Amino acid sequence: MNASEVLRRLGKERPLVHHLTNYVTVNLVANATLATGALPVMANAVEEVEEMVATASALVINMGTLDGAWVEAMVLAGKEANRRGIPVILDPVGAGATRFRTETPERLLSEISFAAVCGNAGEISTLAGLAAEVRGVESIGGDAREAARKAALRLGTTVAATGEVDYVCDGERLFAVENGHPLMGRIVGSGCASTAVVGCFAAVGGGGSETVAGALALFGRAGEAAAEGSEGPGTFEPRLLDALAALAADPDELDGRLVVEDLPLA
Amino acid sequence: MNASEVLRRLGKERPLVHHLTNYVTVNLVANATLATGALPVMANAVEEVEEMVATASALVINMGTLDGAWVEAMVLAGKEANRRGIPVILDPVGAGATRFRTETPERLLSEISFAAVCGNAGEISTLAGLAAEVRGVESIGGDAREAARKAALRLGTTVAATGEVDYVCDGERLFAVENGHPLMGRIVGSGCASTAVVGCFAAVGGGGSETVAGALALFGRAGEAAAEGSEGPGTFEPRLLDALAALAADPDELDGRLVVEDLPLA
Amino acid sequence: MNASEVLRRLGKERPLVHHLTNYVTVNLVANATLATGALPVMANAVEEVEEMVATASALVINMGTLDGAWVEAMVLAGKEANRRGIPVILDPVGAGATRFRTETPERLLSEISFAAVCGNAGEISTLAGLAAEVRGVESIGGDAREAARKAALRLGTTVAATGEVDYVCDGERLFAVENGHPLMGRIVGSGCASTAVVGCFAAVGGGGSETVAGALALFGRAGEAAAEGSEGPGTFEPRLLDALAALAADPDELDGRLVVEDLPLA
Repeated sequence: MNASEVLRRLGKERPLVHHLTNYVTVNLVANATLATGALPVMANAVEEVEEMVATASALVINMGTLDGAWVEAMVLAGKEANRRGIPVILDPVGAGATRFRTETPERLLSEISFAAVCGNAGEISTLAGLAAEVRGVESIGGDAREAARKAALRLGTTVAATGEVDYVCDGERLFAVENGHPLMGRIVGSGCASTAVVGCFAAVGGGGSETVAGALALFGRAGEAAAEGSEGPGTFEPRLLDALAALAADPDELDGRLVVEDLPLA
Repeated sequence: MNASEVLRRLGKERPLVHHLTNYVTVNLVANATLATGALPVMANAVEEVEEMVATASALVINMGTLDGAWVEAMVLAGKEANRRGIPVILDPVGAGATRFRTETPERLLSEISFAAVCGNAGEISTLAGLAAEVRGVESIGGDAREAARKAALRLGTTVAATGEVDYVCDGERLFAVENGHPLMGRIVGSGCASTAVVGCFAAVGGGGSETVAGALALFGRAGEAAAEGSEGPGTFEPRLLDALAALAADPDELDGRLVVEDLPLA
Repeated sequence: MNASEVLRRLGKERPLVHHLTNYVTVNLVANATLATGALPVMANAVEEVEEMVATASALVINMGTLDGAWVEAMVLAGKEANRRGIPVILDPVGAGATRFRTETPERLLSEISFAAVCGNAGEISTLAGLAAEVRGVESIGGDAREAARKAALRLGTTVAATGEVDYVCDGERLFAVENGHPLMGRIVGSGCASTAVVGCFAAVGGGGSETVAGALALFGRAGEAAAEGSEGPGTFEPRLLDALAALAADPDELDGRLVVEDLPLA
């Protein structure tokens, strides 16, 4: 589904997007969700995750900060979403940085069926079984295109590897998303927020590679717009939310501004 | 106590307001508290909640994100506050959305005596035993006036139901607060922050319906002022804190700007 | 190491700084870390803290919100950092406010060797065994200079006590940092963020008193720059991150603007 159509539906339907996410960037994730037109909810207690996700239209699992209890909640919510056909998105934050962060996405991927997986080049390389250089939760270099392609084939789902150019692959098609701005890498949480927008798009459009690429292009375009007039990373962040909300409110104006290239797979 | 008098005392006494609140909007809650002149503290460990609340002038319990351990801490802190005559405010975030979120406020209300309860129309309708449409932690429609009135009678305390117009009722009086701006509904946490301001007001003025209405009017007025010059929800949020701090610093200028109507109860 | 040299190395080496910090101000802490050129990571699970800290160049332990499980993670991470010679910084948030917050830094100080300890006058007075007035996590008055001096002698490490003027002492030298602006005290988390900057400086320069004083002067200078044009605490915070990033990106321009005085110890 193209981005304009997705945004029209988000504004009209206002679907609930359930996030199991980290406490570092959770506020930005929630506000980015709201800016697209969707409604965020962050319930993480085992007492309620299954019941809450059953009322949602998408589930986003973000590993930014996690411990044993969180992983249990993720598994419970993910399985319930699968039972109900609700799309589940994974952001494997820091995969490759520690054993716990490498094993957890493996477990999640074995127990839950994901509609899309979104991470930086290092994280997606880790999931693809490629060598990766990860420092904490930051990717240091890495070939995003190759990572997305290999991980999509290995995992059998849509995979996005974000970076200067974002690559999205579903094993059959490969998209390059050229929208974006360097200031996005200078705030904490732009990766988490872009995955949140993917979750919102999935709530009405599913996890197909074109829909995921559209979500990343929208977010990147918001970054471009926000960078104009920003004096640094601090003032960039609120302007990013302004820009995202403005683009979401005017879907007709959008399509010419999104730069998504359809690439040959091999 | 009227809002100007409350703010003069907050600026002079700088009371401690103890929040047991969610990790999504906690930063805005803390900064909103500080902007009124009060001092926020967020301690939630069972090891210290009772000792901390004993040094505070108000306790705000916000259910935004909660699990079993948090509920225990809420009960411990609430009971200690009751023993010491410290006003306790409840924000039943998401009441009605899941069984856990419906049963938890019932338990809290049965074990703790609250000076005021503040939520959106859906949450307050749930507490009033009325039908409510809640999506995650958002209220979808609902009659705020009727919810506030019924809940106040049922719970025997001051109840505020927020929305386009906020209604505050203590079972004998009913106030309508007209201040506010639509941008407040486009950021995550404006409800939590308005309840935090109610907590600050309660720290010096108690939980009477006029004081609660004054707190909501102040917060709504800050929203109106912040909206001027905002380019969207992102830049609105920091401007909301600026406006709240500016209004709090100049209480003499305030009263003519707060639009609170005294309504007939029936 | 002087501040310009530290910043040049941070921009070139991009060291990982591991934070075990509170959920109230964590986003500001992470963004302040990133603004200096370092890379923040916030992993707190016992499953991974030791492995994560082993990949970091500094560890910052901030007690803002804590419970039993967090204290265990802090001890595990701190001991591993000590084994590897990675500098560890402590921010004893709220020390003196409750028994739990007074005993926890005592335990941490007995089990972990800290390169520097940074807190407000009340917290540092508590660690120094002096009388202190603490309200929640805020210091109400107190002699920062005397607190820093006494605590440095008692703890045998570098100690910073922040306030209108910050004092840094290592038992042999005493520095006064004059940079800063009153708006810094009107946002939640400026203390946490200043300790985070100390952690970044320690990642390349260690915890010597001159390096710590340089970090606090840089942060204070950013506050001065951010205050120009701010309309209140809300818009001040993003501008503070802008200013910090701008200063970090131009280390050559820095030194004349930092006001650090070398005082006699007695």
